[in-house]
Amino acid sequence: MNIIDLIIKKRDNNELSTEDINFFIESVCRNAVPDYQISAMLMAMCINSLSKRETADLTRAMTSSGGIMELDEIEGFKADKHSTGGVSDSTTLIVAPLCASLGLPIIKMSGRGLGHTGGTLDKLEAIPGFNVHISKEKAIEQAKKHGIVIMSQSDELAPADKYLYAVRDVTGTVDSMPLIASSIMSKKLACGSDGIVLDIKCGRGAFMKDLDSAEELANEMIGLGRSLGKKMSALITNMDEPLGMNIGNSLEVIEAIEVLKGNSRGALRDVSIAIGSEMLVMGGIAKDSAEASDMLKRNIRNNKGLYKFAELISLQGGNPAVIDNYSLFPQRVSKSAVISEKDGYISEIDALCIGRAAAATGAGRQKKDAAIDYGAGIMLKKRTGDKVTKGEILARIFAENSEMCAEAAEIIKSGIKISDEKSAEKPLIYKVIR
Amino acid sequence: MNIIDLIIKKRDNNELSTEDINFFIESVCRNAVPDYQISAMLMAMCINSLSKRETADLTRAMTSSGGIMELDEIEGFKADKHSTGGVSDSTTLIVAPLCASLGLPIIKMSGRGLGHTGGTLDKLEAIPGFNVHISKEKAIEQAKKHGIVIMSQSDELAPADKYLYAVRDVTGTVDSMPLIASSIMSKKLACGSDGIVLDIKCGRGAFMKDLDSAEELANEMIGLGRSLGKKMSALITNMDEPLGMNIGNSLEVIEAIEVLKGNSRGALRDVSIAIGSEMLVMGGIAKDSAEASDMLKRNIRNNKGLYKFAELISLQGGNPAVIDNYSLFPQRVSKSAVISEKDGYISEIDALCIGRAAAATGAGRQKKDAAIDYGAGIMLKKRTGDKVTKGEILARIFAENSEMCAEAAEIIKSGIKISDEKSAEKPLIYKVIR
Repeated sequence: MNIIDLIIKKRDNNELSTEDINFFIESVCRNAVPDYQISAMLMAMCINSLSKRETADLTRAMTSSGGIMELDEIEGFKADKHSTGGVSDSTTLIVAPLCASLGLPIIKMSGRGLGHTGGTLDKLEAIPGFNVHISKEKAIEQAKKHGIVIMSQSDELAPADKYLYAVRDVTGTVDSMPLIASSIMSKKLACGSDGIVLDIKCGRGAFMKDLDSAEELANEMIGLGRSLGKKMSALITNMDEPLGMNIGNSLEVIEAIEVLKGNSRGALRDVSIAIGSEMLVMGGIAKDSAEASDMLKRNIRNNKGLYKFAELISLQGGNPAVIDNYSLFPQRVSKSAVISEKDGYISEIDALCIGRAAAATGAGRQKKDAAIDYGAGIMLKKRTGDKVTKGEILARIFAENSEMCAEAAEIIKSGIKISDEKSAEKPLIYKVIR
Repeated sequence: MNIIDLIIKKRDNNELSTEDINFFIESVCRNAVPDYQISAMLMAMCINSLSKRETADLTRAMTSSGGIMELDEIEGFKADKHSTGGVSDSTTLIVAPLCASLGLPIIKMSGRGLGHTGGTLDKLEAIPGFNVHISKEKAIEQAKKHGIVIMSQSDELAPADKYLYAVRDVTGTVDSMPLIASSIMSKKLACGSDGIVLDIKCGRGAFMKDLDSAEELANEMIGLGRSLGKKMSALITNMDEPLGMNIGNSLEVIEAIEVLKGNSRGALRDVSIAIGSEMLVMGGIAKDSAEASDMLKRNIRNNKGLYKFAELISLQGGNPAVIDNYSLFPQRVSKSAVISEKDGYISEIDALCIGRAAAATGAGRQKKDAAIDYGAGIMLKKRTGDKVTKGEILARIFAENSEMCAEAAEIIKSGIKISDEKSAEKPLIYKVIR
């Protein structure tokens, strides 16, 4: 078998066999395929697409390109969640402790933020002392005893995806439904859970801009997971505006704590409960989503979710006192605010703009491995549909210096639109696919 | 402008603007585009194709990526010829001196053989002392005084094509009509001639396997040349079997000399006269192809073409005595022959097989810059349609050792078919497009 022949096969829109795909992935992993051949193959896959069978084979090959987490030692159904990435999405920080507090073991591998989107690992690292680098053995021990771990995704898991993604990122081949689906699913499947709840973000701040493509991705991933023996369900949720009010690492952890304390209501809490409900039902903890939702709300009211989060922080070396004393978080002083220039109703808070503005404050990174400022970010004061009067504060900006604040302010302004009439509300959760 | 954006534009099957294409080629030439981005772009071009305008822009950008030969000092119409590559195609060695002997100045840049196809430079270098590495200045001087130069294509000409081709060759992106056409034409246009006669080979031993694709390529290249101000015409000629009887470098020069001496008739001579006629008419030396053909045949009979070839050899440091003494050529002793195993008619002599067999004797190269054996090769004793009897010699093999002979013999056998009935003859020249 020869890589060029395989590239030509795909270029000519012929279906690659299971052996072809295994050979390609195996060759990529042993560095036997130069980047220019990988990119030629990816472009051919991107344009000519992949059949369901090819996508499943690709996912399977990538999943088994490295180790697979063995979670058998942990009793019960192991549910995972995955968000396709949005702005102010700290649902994991809420869902994981809540579900764990209800007896669903959570061994969650998370990633870092890139571009306008945040990442759970970065947020957790805003908590002084919190360590996300945990060995497999320690993770399993901690999950067995305490039912909760949130850790950095091991480099050993699905290494093929890492090789392919590095090339896709710089060759215009990110944008392909089967490649996206197989990339996400290979990593998730390598994490060894029994089922996965997907949160497919849809809208201006998401990778999927419209409901059709979000649904297509959801179905592609659900089909993929099921064909590989996993329980699957997906929520398609609105990402036109940021999910929470805070954007930035310390700021988002604080907001998540506020949700766990029952102080914060709104979209972030609602989506968290929806995701958590799916996980509890999938895991057999609740018989249906109404019961699951009640259980989650109860564990907000009785602070059991909050305590579980404090326990998690403590277990992973962090200072659980942050829960009651937010001043322990690295934080920038707000030096700037965005003020409404007219009366009216907020008709748009573009999540993409707000995410980019947050990156401009130093809260995000443009390049992998770049340093971030945990204390920087944005605090929105309004949501779409809210009434505003001229001179009212729309957002506060937290950054190291006033230049960064000014840059972020400009971007925020370009993303917030005010109209005379209140516009029709869009649903927060478009669809649940079970 | 950003390369990834351009790749995505082409990936999504949008037309690249002139500026886009210029930016891409200019960036490639200053090494600002990594190979994996070049290959992604080429794959997108290969699958989504290029419009006529894009192809012309790409050709123009590649042509002007390096120097362009200035031939204004040489009086008269400068006609060039180009063959898309075949087996036993030594037409240049016949056409160039014949046309030059009739007053059409020939400044021909040629290439080397690769895979199953031969190259004019390699053939000329089989002549002891012949030097193909000539400076522009010397070439123009020689052309002005003697009307003939055959030289190595300068690395300065159309360097962009070299960069792109190096990537195409290893990424399955050779096979694209606009990329093939722009690659050939950019090099030809940089050679500065006023007009080009194309010999589009069609058949088993050619890149174009069928008449439709050969015609498509011919029309693509003709359109391209004309849109850039050149006179163009094309012949589509049969490459099912080798054009001449000899395959290998010394062997092919000897056969070309035999044609120039008037001793050899057949396909090689006929195609040479057809190409030469087009060039003479294009250059205004003859009023039509009948007159041109007569002129060429006359200069075979009166040996003026042969003497011009001897003059060329002498001018470029070679030993013109080879013309009368073939033993001066590097030659291998024939150690092996392929014998007919039955009576019948030759129904097929697969040019691709014969080309590969010649490469196996050492006459060709599998990789660029590999050494070749000038004295090695194959001498066919029969042509398609010929009657054969069992035990008759079909081909002689010339190689350094008997292992190579044996390997070549096997390949030749697989390429020669004998049937009981004489099969219908295929035309030698399918079409002339003016």
